[in-house]
Formats: sequence, structure tokens, C-alpha cells
Amino acid sequence: MAQNLAGPEIERLIQLLARVPGLGPRSARRAVLHLMKKREELLTPLGEAMRVAAERIVTCSECGNLDSMDPCSICRDPRRDPSIIVVVESVGDLWALERAAVLRAAYHVLGGTLSPMDGIGPEDLALGKLLDRASRPEVREVILAMNATVEGQTTAHYITDMLSEAGVRITRLAHGVPVGGELDYLDEGTLSAAMLSRTNL
Amino acid sequence: MAQNLAGPEIERLIQLLARVPGLGPRSARRAVLHLMKKREELLTPLGEAMRVAAERIVTCSECGNLDSMDPCSICRDPRRDPSIIVVVESVGDLWALERAAVLRAAYHVLGGTLSPMDGIGPEDLALGKLLDRASRPEVREVILAMNATVEGQTTAHYITDMLSEAGVRITRLAHGVPVGGELDYLDEGTLSAAMLSRTNL
Repeated sequence: MAQNLAGPEIERLIQLLARVPGLGPRSARRAVLHLMKKREELLTPLGEAMRVAAERIVTCSECGNLDSMDPCSICRDPRRDPSIIVVVESVGDLWALERAAVLRAAYHVLGGTLSPMDGIGPEDLALGKLLDRASRPEVREVILAMNATVEGQTTAHYITDMLSEAGVRITRLAHGVPVGGELDYLDEGTLSAAMLSRTNL
Repeated sequence: MAQNLAGPEIERLIQLLARVPGLGPRSARRAVLHLMKKREELLTPLGEAMRVAAERIVTCSECGNLDSMDPCSICRDPRRDPSIIVVVESVGDLWALERAAVLRAAYHVLGGTLSPMDGIGPEDLALGKLLDRASRPEVREVILAMNATVEGQTTAHYITDMLSEAGVRITRLAHGVPVGGELDYLDEGTLSAAMLSRTNL
């Protein structure tokens, strides 16, 4: 779109919105038209929510979660079991596990996975802090909740080695058939894992 | 996600972003995580761009376009041909035609189409203003660039009637095979229109 078409303000908003994951140049334009229609209900509050988030949200110095407090609400929560640390790759994975709401434990966000191809080594992840936390007397178990990818599993192996002297139980998420999943659509790796880890009825 | 998980600031940002067309609750969460990573480069500028847009962008009182000036840059542009008015349903359609950059004419944004089913009558569209503009001595042609939908075509008929006394030539966009389109995938209506409006080679 020519610079002089709708003014630099709209053009800039479209360009920035197009960089949001899930939106592209086309959907950004459509989004801007919608935002201009919903100026009071959506555009203004959204701009303000972004300003507030940029200003207040910090990374928890304990676990790596995002929150407006440091330590974060999860680390401060007295109803959580501090003897279990769930290790995840990203804050998104932490949120996914919290939505499942299966375990009220502590978390540790690595901030990525080991990936020599991308030049990401142990020093780029929050591993020292994890060793430090896992070595505390109150911690009994570390659950490795990495993604079931090559990088995720490599990282899980590395952490297992690193924590071998820490005197904690180390576990990982079970592999198997996803709930609601159809066998016909699953890969062989998942099927053999599910078969080998079969449980009694 | 529980209210106390990542703090109300992030929760509010996710909820507002999920209302942007093209994003849903899931992609809004992913977008927020990305925005938090790109705080300086994306989150802060985007919030600021939204504040500026909400504050400065107005609807052009002449043609209905969005701009930071009123009349808008298109209406002010002395290189445009003021004798032709291209009537469109929405600002998005205006932008689409400007990207095609085929005609440097004036525009008129109706702000919708006639739709008795949705209770949208002539008084809900910018029709009085169009009659007024089309009746000015310098205007020679009104191009009806409505969508090729039932509502769009109904609106085009209404406008044709309305302007019958205005002394202007009234035209509409050609129907035909889209450039790059394959005949096999086109509907019968498009094909017969293309056949009836065939041109000499």
C-alpha cells in the first residue's frame, strides 16, 4: 500500500501487526480495519494492555515464568508442592501443563533446548539454576516435561546426567496414545512406546 | 488459564488479542509469548502505534476513507481525477483497489451494503452524501465497485436508480475469469458472464 494512502499511522500499525505470529500482511490489514471499527472496545484497551504488559511483566528469577511479580505467583503459592520441580522448555509449555491442572508443583523454564545446529549450548539455558534448585534438601523429584522431539530428548538426557549427583528422583512424561487419538494416524514410535508401556486393566 | 497463573496483565492481553480477527485464544497465547520476547522491538512499539491510531485516525467526511487528516490524503491529492468516483462497500475494498493502482480517481465508501435481513437500509449507508457528490458539475462517472454478492449487486441497483437523475455515467466492474484462474474451478455464473462479455483479440 502506498505510504500516502491511509497515512503513516495506519501503515505503521499494519506493519507491526503483520509481525505478530498468526497474522500476516493480509490479515494485519483486516485486523486494523476491525480495530478501527472497535476503537473504544478493543483498539484503545489493547494498546493500553500492551503498554502495561511491556512495563510490568518480568521473568521470574526463580523459575523463569512470566509474571508481574518476582518471584512469580506460582513460586509464591504456599499450596504448591515445593518437593517437585517440573522442567519445561518454554513458558508456553508451562501454561499448557497448568491448563491440564494435573499437578500443583513448582516449575523450571529452561528457555529452549540444547541444539548444536543452532549454536544453543548448555550455557544458553537456565541449567545452573536448575542444578542449584534440584540440590536443595526439600526437592525430591524433578519431572522432565520436554517436548518429544530430538532436541527435547537430548536436553532431557543432558539434565539426567547433570542431576545424577543431586540425590533427586528424575522422571519424564509418559509416551503413549494421545487421549482421543486414533491408532491409524499415529506413528510407529508412539505405537511401540504405548505398547511397551501398556498398563493393567 | 487460572487468573493467578501469569498475573492479570498477561491474562487481559491474551483476552483482548483473542478478539482480533485472525487470532483465537490459542494463537493469542502464542502471540503474547512472542510479544514478551520481543518487548522492545515489537510489544512496546505496537502498543504505542495502537494508541496513536486510536487518537489520530478519523473517517474522512468527504469519502469515508480512514486517515489522520480530514479530508483524507486521497481527497486532497491534486493528481487524482475528481471526475470519477469509485463507490466501494468498505475501506478494505478501497485499499484493495489502491493496491491494484489501476485508476487514480476519487472514492466513496458506503460503509456496508443494503441488507433487509440484517436490518440495514439506505439510511444506514453513506448514500445521501454520494448523491450530493455525484451531482456536482465536475463529476462525469460513478464506478460501482461493489462485491459480486447478492447484497453488493442489490446495492448497486439501488444506487443506479438513485443516480438516474444526476446526469452521470454509471458503470460497474467487469465480470469474468480472474487472472490466473482455471476455467475448471469457476462457477457457471462467472463462466457465462465471461463468455457474454468476450472481447476481440
